[in-house]
Amino acid sequence: MGNLAEPRAQQPALAELDYLLQRFRQVRATSEAICAPLQIEDYVIQSMPDVSPPKWHLAHISWFFEAFLLKPYLKGYKPLNDAYDHLFNSYYETHSTPFPRTQRGLISRPGVEDVYRFRQHVDRAMGELLVNPPQQHAAEIMRRVELGLQHEQQHQELLLMDIKHILAQNPLHPTYRSDLKPAPVVHNDRIRWHDYAEGVYHIGHAGGGFAFDCETPRHRQFVEAFQLADRPVSNREYLSFIADGGYARSDLWLSDGWALIRQYGWNAPFYWHRDENGWYEMTLSGLQPLDLEAPVCHVSFYEADAYARWAGARLPTEAEWEVAATDQPRRGNFLENDHLQPVAASIPHPGPAQLFGDVWEWTASAYRPYPGFRPLEGSLGEYNGKFMSGQMVLRGGCCATPEAHIRATYRNFFQPAMRWQFAGLRLAREL
Amino acid sequence: MGNLAEPRAQQPALAELDYLLQRFRQVRATSEAICAPLQIEDYVIQSMPDVSPPKWHLAHISWFFEAFLLKPYLKGYKPLNDAYDHLFNSYYETHSTPFPRTQRGLISRPGVEDVYRFRQHVDRAMGELLVNPPQQHAAEIMRRVELGLQHEQQHQELLLMDIKHILAQNPLHPTYRSDLKPAPVVHNDRIRWHDYAEGVYHIGHAGGGFAFDCETPRHRQFVEAFQLADRPVSNREYLSFIADGGYARSDLWLSDGWALIRQYGWNAPFYWHRDENGWYEMTLSGLQPLDLEAPVCHVSFYEADAYARWAGARLPTEAEWEVAATDQPRRGNFLENDHLQPVAASIPHPGPAQLFGDVWEWTASAYRPYPGFRPLEGSLGEYNGKFMSGQMVLRGGCCATPEAHIRATYRNFFQPAMRWQFAGLRLAREL
Amino acid sequence: MGNLAEPRAQQPALAELDYLLQRFRQVRATSEAICAPLQIEDYVIQSMPDVSPPKWHLAHISWFFEAFLLKPYLKGYKPLNDAYDHLFNSYYETHSTPFPRTQRGLISRPGVEDVYRFRQHVDRAMGELLVNPPQQHAAEIMRRVELGLQHEQQHQELLLMDIKHILAQNPLHPTYRSDLKPAPVVHNDRIRWHDYAEGVYHIGHAGGGFAFDCETPRHRQFVEAFQLADRPVSNREYLSFIADGGYARSDLWLSDGWALIRQYGWNAPFYWHRDENGWYEMTLSGLQPLDLEAPVCHVSFYEADAYARWAGARLPTEAEWEVAATDQPRRGNFLENDHLQPVAASIPHPGPAQLFGDVWEWTASAYRPYPGFRPLEGSLGEYNGKFMSGQMVLRGGCCATPEAHIRATYRNFFQPAMRWQFAGLRLAREL
Amino acid sequence: MGNLAEPRAQQPALAELDYLLQRFRQVRATSEAICAPLQIEDYVIQSMPDVSPPKWHLAHISWFFEAFLLKPYLKGYKPLNDAYDHLFNSYYETHSTPFPRTQRGLISRPGVEDVYRFRQHVDRAMGELLVNPPQQHAAEIMRRVELGLQHEQQHQELLLMDIKHILAQNPLHPTYRSDLKPAPVVHNDRIRWHDYAEGVYHIGHAGGGFAFDCETPRHRQFVEAFQLADRPVSNREYLSFIADGGYARSDLWLSDGWALIRQYGWNAPFYWHRDENGWYEMTLSGLQPLDLEAPVCHVSFYEADAYARWAGARLPTEAEWEVAATDQPRRGNFLENDHLQPVAASIPHPGPAQLFGDVWEWTASAYRPYPGFRPLEGSLGEYNGKFMSGQMVLRGGCCATPEAHIRATYRNFFQPAMRWQFAGLRLAREL
Repeated sequence: MGNLAEPRAQQPALAELDYLLQRFRQVRATSEAICAPLQIEDYVIQSMPDVSPPKWHLAHISWFFEAFLLKPYLKGYKPLNDAYDHLFNSYYETHSTPFPRTQRGLISRPGVEDVYRFRQHVDRAMGELLVNPPQQHAAEIMRRVELGLQHEQQHQELLLMDIKHILAQNPLHPTYRSDLKPAPVVHNDRIRWHDYAEGVYHIGHAGGGFAFDCETPRHRQFVEAFQLADRPVSNREYLSFIADGGYARSDLWLSDGWALIRQYGWNAPFYWHRDENGWYEMTLSGLQPLDLEAPVCHVSFYEADAYARWAGARLPTEAEWEVAATDQPRRGNFLENDHLQPVAASIPHPGPAQLFGDVWEWTASAYRPYPGFRPLEGSLGEYNGKFMSGQMVLRGGCCATPEAHIRATYRNFFQPAMRWQFAGLRLAREL
Repeated sequence: MGNLAEPRAQQPALAELDYLLQRFRQVRATSEAICAPLQIEDYVIQSMPDVSPPKWHLAHISWFFEAFLLKPYLKGYKPLNDAYDHLFNSYYETHSTPFPRTQRGLISRPGVEDVYRFRQHVDRAMGELLVNPPQQHAAEIMRRVELGLQHEQQHQELLLMDIKHILAQNPLHPTYRSDLKPAPVVHNDRIRWHDYAEGVYHIGHAGGGFAFDCETPRHRQFVEAFQLADRPVSNREYLSFIADGGYARSDLWLSDGWALIRQYGWNAPFYWHRDENGWYEMTLSGLQPLDLEAPVCHVSFYEADAYARWAGARLPTEAEWEVAATDQPRRGNFLENDHLQPVAASIPHPGPAQLFGDVWEWTASAYRPYPGFRPLEGSLGEYNGKFMSGQMVLRGGCCATPEAHIRATYRNFFQPAMRWQFAGLRLAREL
Repeated sequence: MGNLAEPRAQQPALAELDYLLQRFRQVRATSEAICAPLQIEDYVIQSMPDVSPPKWHLAHISWFFEAFLLKPYLKGYKPLNDAYDHLFNSYYETHSTPFPRTQRGLISRPGVEDVYRFRQHVDRAMGELLVNPPQQHAAEIMRRVELGLQHEQQHQELLLMDIKHILAQNPLHPTYRSDLKPAPVVHNDRIRWHDYAEGVYHIGHAGGGFAFDCETPRHRQFVEAFQLADRPVSNREYLSFIADGGYARSDLWLSDGWALIRQYGWNAPFYWHRDENGWYEMTLSGLQPLDLEAPVCHVSFYEADAYARWAGARLPTEAEWEVAATDQPRRGNFLENDHLQPVAASIPHPGPAQLFGDVWEWTASAYRPYPGFRPLEGSLGEYNGKFMSGQMVLRGGCCATPEAHIRATYRNFFQPAMRWQFAGLRLAREL
Repeated sequence: MGNLAEPRAQQPALAELDYLLQRFRQVRATSEAICAPLQIEDYVIQSMPDVSPPKWHLAHISWFFEAFLLKPYLKGYKPLNDAYDHLFNSYYETHSTPFPRTQRGLISRPGVEDVYRFRQHVDRAMGELLVNPPQQHAAEIMRRVELGLQHEQQHQELLLMDIKHILAQNPLHPTYRSDLKPAPVVHNDRIRWHDYAEGVYHIGHAGGGFAFDCETPRHRQFVEAFQLADRPVSNREYLSFIADGGYARSDLWLSDGWALIRQYGWNAPFYWHRDENGWYEMTLSGLQPLDLEAPVCHVSFYEADAYARWAGARLPTEAEWEVAATDQPRRGNFLENDHLQPVAASIPHPGPAQLFGDVWEWTASAYRPYPGFRPLEGSLGEYNGKFMSGQMVLRGGCCATPEAHIRATYRNFFQPAMRWQFAGLRLAREL
C-alpha cells in the first residue's frame, strides 16, 4: 500500500483532478493493451499457484477501485455483480473473504467479455467520482486513486510474467507477440567496478511523490565502503558458471538452495532449453536463441547468490543498491521500450548502467520493515506489511515494468526460490 | 477397446459402409451438440486431475480416428498439425508419448476454434476413407470405426460429467442449460425384491454386435441364489442413512472408506449443499432443491457399500446384476431423454426398474479380466486391460449415456473413491 | 477374525482346555524366541508406516488377549496399565480409540522390559482363566483363545517381515541371525504344467478346525479348465525378465503399476542390490549373493502380473489355486525350517511343488467377500471384513509362516504395491 | 563455525593445553550426564525431521573431533568403524556424503553401547593428541578443539530440546527427570521500558575469546533511538493475547504465519494443553500446571511477532538487542541452574532482566551475513554461512544453554515456524 509522503489538508485543484483522470485512463488502457494479443483461452489459465489467469488480473484491478473508492465514496454506486467482491478480492482478509488463490484457474465465468464489461462499469463510475468528488474526502480519494493506479501498474508487470508462464507450459512454444522490438547487437566489456565510501546514508523515500508504505520511513543506515559492478551479469557469464559445474558444487550454495536444485533438477535458469544446436530461451516472442550479451534473467535468489560466490563477489544489500542508484537517472529498458525481454545496454553510461529496467536485481537483503514502519490504516494496510517474512528484496524494475512506476527507493520482493519474474543480478564486493 | 465378436472375412457391403458413415456423422454431431451451450472459457478448464478440458475431449476423440484410421489407412493423409499426435494422445504409451494428463488444463492453444477445425479436417478425411476404403483392410477399418464411435460416445458422457464438475467449482453455480427436461412428479413405493435361482450362468458378451474386449470371452459362473431390489436407492432413503449417523459409524465402512470420509470430511453425496432451507444439489441446470424421489447419485463405492450395510443388504456382484439384466429391455433415462439428471421411474415395470439409465450402479466386484481374456492387438490393446487394478465395476449406464452405447454386458469401472460420475446403487441380498 | 465352523453347545472337556493352554504357551514362547536376537534399539523402530516396532507387536498381541478375553471373562482382572488399551489397540475402532498407526515408532515408553512384563502379566492371567473358565462362556472363551493364537501367529510372520525391513534401512546391512539354515544346492528343471478340468468346485473352508471368517462360507464356483506351473518363478527366470527390458516395456504393465515403477524407479525386486560383482539380496542373514534357484521374492502384485504377461501366462485366480492345493499335503519351507528365506525345492513332488511355504503367491483375485459372508459379531468383526477393498489375495504361506497356521483355504491379502512381505508368484494359463 | 579473533602465531603453552584438555573432559562429561536419565529406547527416536535421536547426537559430536582433529592430526589414528564417517556426518557435503537427516531414526545400530564405545575411543585419542600435539599444527588444533567443544555445547541444548520433543509425543507424558529445581514463587511487575539513544554502534564480536564466524566481522550499524522491555513477555500476558482472540485476528499476523496457524490449528504455544482445570505445559518434569509468571516459551517467530503487534509494540532487531546486552552481566537461568524450564526472574536488576538464559528471544532480524563476512576455510566453512536464508535470529540463550556458551554477540537462528526450541520474546518500540 502506498502513501503520499505529505498529507494534503487542502482541496485538490481542478487541474489536479483532471490530470489524475487522464492518468487513470492511460493506465487502464495500458492493461487492456497488454491483453489485446491474447486469445480468450489464454485468459483462463492458472499455470501454477503463483500465477493468476489474465482475466482474473483484469477483474481484480477493477475490484480494487470498486472496493476502496466506489463503494465508500461514490454515492449511489451499484456494483455490477455482488459476487465479484468475493471472487476478485486477492488477499484482503479484513475486507471480505478472498476467493482461494489456488482456485482462480477453476472459474470459467464470469468470462472475458463479462470482465471487460466490469472494467467499463468501474471506469464509468470512476469518471463520475473524479469529476465531482465529495469535498471532505477529496484528498483521500486522490491518494487512493494514485494507489489504485500504482497497483494496476504492478499487475501490468504481473500480467506479462503470467502470460509468459502460461504460454511456456505449451510444448508448441506459442508467441505472445511477433512484433516485439529486437535486441540491439552489442558486445559487453568486462565488468568494471564503481566505488562507494562508507558512511551514514539516508535510505527510504523522502516524500514529494508517491511511494509505497514499505519504502518509508526515511531513516539512516551505516553502510561500509563497497564496490558495485557497472552492469548486471550476462548470459555469457552465467554460462561460464554452468560450464564450471556451478550447479554441481555444494560449496557454492546456500543449504536451502542446494536442496532445491537437487530436488527439482535445476541446472540452468528458468525458461532455458538446450538442444543439439545450443541454448534457447522461451520469451514473449516464442522460443529464441539465447542472447549471450543480455543480462541473465529468471534466476532464483539461490542461483544469484551461488553465482556471486562463484565469481568471488556477493550480492549488494538493498541499502548499497539504493546508495548507488539514488542520484542516477531513471533510464532503461521498460515496458514502454517494447522489448519485453532484457537486452544488453547499448549506450555508455557514466554511473553503473542498467540499474533501472531490464532485470530486477536480487539483493542480499531480506524484506523486513524499516525502523518505525507503519502500514496504512484499515484493509489497505494489508498491501505490503504482512508479506515481510520469507522474502528477499529486489531493486530497479525490469523490461516489463512501466517506466513511471519505478524509483530508486522501490522495494520489490519475492520468495528466494521464485523464478518466473524477470530477475537477474549485479555483483558487489568489499572495497 | 472393443471387438466384433465374429471376425468377418468378406468385404463389407456398400450399404454397410453407407450406414456406418451416417452413424459416424450422427455421433460426431452429438459431441458438438453437447458442447454447444459452452462459453469458450468453459472449454479450457481442468477442474481436477481426473477431469479434462472439454476442448481436449473434442480434440482427443478426433485424434483417435486420426491415429488408428487415417494415418494407417488413408493414403496421402496429411495431419493438420503434427504436434496434435502428442497433445491429444490420452494414454496410449505404445503409440506416442502422451501429453501428461494432469497438465491438460495448462494448454490454451490450440484454442477452441482450432479444435473444431481439427474435427472438420478429420471428418473430411474420414468421409474420404469410408467412401472408398482399401479393399484388403475394409473389415478392420469398419471394426475400428465402430470402436472409434463407441469411444466417442464414452467421451460424450465424460464431457457431461466434466462440464458439471467444472461449473460446480464456481460459487456462482452457473447453469449449463436452462431448458433441460424436468423430473416427473412421482412417489416411490417401498423397495420390492426380485428372486433369482442359483445356477451356472453364462456371463459376458455373446457376439452379434459390438462389445468391448473386457466384456469377453463369454464364460460360465456359478451364482448362488440372490434377491435384487426393484429400483435404485433414492435420495429420501439416503437421507435416512445420513440422519441415522451413517457417516459417523465406523462399523458401517470399509477401512479405506472410513479413512477417506474422515480425511475429507465427507458427510453427504458429492454436489449436495445444505443451507437453512434444506438440501440442494448442483445439477446441469444449476443449483436445485434435492429431488427426494430420484435415485441417489454421485456417491463413491465406499458410500454405496456403507449404505447397503446399514440397510442390512449388500451390493450385487456384477454377475448377479448381469443375470438380472440380461433379458430386460434397454429402456431408461439416457442422454437422449434430455434430463441429464437421474429421475424417479414413472412407469410400473415387470422386472427390476431402471437397470439401464439414470445412475450407474456400483457392484461388489473388482474390475478384473474374465477367464481367457485377451486384449486387442497393438496400441488398441491399451484400451481396457491395463486398467484392471484398483477399480470397481459399475453397470447399466446413466442419464448422460447415449442409449445406443449401453447393454447388459457393459462393464464400466471407476476407482472406489470417485464421485463425479453419475453413480448410485441398488441393493441385493442372499435369498 | 476366525470362527470355528461348528458352534459347540457343550462344555469343553478338561483335556481340551489343557491342550489349549499348552498351545497357548508354545505360541507365546515362539513370539519371544523370534525377538530374542534383537537389541533393545531394534525393538523401537518403525521403518515405514506399514511396519510396526517389534515391541509394539509384542505388546499388541498381549493386548488382544486382555481386550477380548481377560477384561470380559476373568473376574477381578486388573490391567497392568490402563493406558495400554489405547496404545496397543491396532485398528478396532469400535473397541477403543486406536493410537495412530503411523506414530507407533515415536513412543519410547513403555520400554522393552515393560512390554515383557505386560506379557507375563497377561500370561499369568490367561493361565488363571484357562484353568477355570466360567462355565457359561467356556465355549466362546476357547473360540477366542484360538483366534488370539492365530492372531499371534500372524504377528510372528509380521515380526520377521518388519525386523527384516528395519535392518535393511541400515547401510551397515546388519544380520538378524548368523546361524540360519543355508539353502540346499539344487538346480531347477524347466517349469512343467499340471492340468485341471473345468467344473463347479467347492471353495472356502469346510469346517472341522479353525478358519478365519473371510474363508467362509464354503460355496460353489465354476472354474474353467486351466494349467498351473509346478513351482514358483525363480530368481534366475526373473533375471531374464529384467534382462529383456521387463521394467522398461509399458505394454507389460497394468497402468497403476507402470506409474508406480516410473515414480519410484523400481527396476528389480525389493531388497535386491547390484554391484560390479552381480546381484545381492538383503536377507535376515544380512546381504547375500542372490540364490538363482530360489523363488523370486519381495515383488509387488504389479511385478508379478507383468512377469506373467511377459512369460505368456497369467497369475492364477484364488479359486484355481485352491482347486490345485486342496488335496495337497501341507509340506514346505516354514518358520520352523529356520531358513527364513525362500529356497529351491529339493525333493521331487507328485503335484505342484511349494504350494505351501517359501513365498506367498500373488493371485489374480481381488480380496472380496465370498457370497453370504458374515463377519464376526462385535469388535472382532473388524478383523478381516473391513479390509476388503484395494487388496489382492495371496495364497500358501511363506518361509516366515508358522506351519500350523496355514491351510489351502487361507486368504492372505496385501495392497498391490506392497513388497516387504515374502511374496512371489506361480504361473497359470488357459488349458 | 567459530574462529578465534586473533590467530596465534606462537605455540600454545603447556598450561593452555592442559586447561583445554580439562575443559574437553568437562564438556564431554556434561553431554553424557544429560543422557544419563534416558532409557535405551529413548535414544533411538526421531520424533520429527528436525529432531535427531539422542544416540545420534552423542555419536555426531564425537565424529566432529574424529573428522576435523583425529584424522588430520593424530598420526596412526584408527577409526573404530569406517562407516561412522558417513553415518554421523550431519551436513558437511564437502567432507563425506552425509547420511540423510530424515532417516536418522531408522538406524537401530550402532546401538547405544556402541556409541558410548565410540565416544571413549575418540576421548582416548583426543587425550593423546592434546598431550602431545604436532608442533606445526598446535595452534590450529587448539582452535579446532575449541570449536569442537562449542559445537558439543550446542548439541547439549539440542539434546534437551529433542528429548523433550520425543517424550512429548507420548500420551503417557513421561518425565525426563523428577528432581529438577522448581521455579521460584515470584510475581512480575508490569513491564518497564529502558531507553537507548540513536547512534552508530559497533556490532559483532570484538575478538579476545571464542566466537562463531557469523558473529564477525565487527562492524558499524546506525541504530535509531528505541526502547526495550525490562523482561520477556510472561505466560500470563500471553494468555491475555489468547483471550483477546489473538489467534483469530488476521490483522495481527504476517501472511505466512496466518496461513500456518490456520493449516495446523495452532491456538496456543507448543507443549500447552488445556483441560477443564486450566492450562498445562509439557516440561522435562512431565506435564505441569502452567507457571503464569514464567516467560512464555515455545512460540514461533510468527506468534512472537503477532503478540508484539497486539501489544502495540514490536520485536527488537538483533542490533538493538546487542546494544542493550553488550554491557550487561551474563547472569541467568542456564543449563547449570537445573531448572531446564524458563522461570520468572526473582532478583531486581538494574538493566533489562533475563537478557541471558531462560528463553531465546526472537528478533525482528533475518539471519544474514554481516558486511565483510567470511566463512571458515574448508569443510568447517559449512558450519554457519550456508544457513543464511529463511531463518530469523534469536539472542541470549535459554535455560538449556550451557552458561559458558553464550555471549552478547551470539547469533542463534531458526526458521520462523519452529517451536521446539526454548524461544520466547521481549518487546521493543520506537522511543
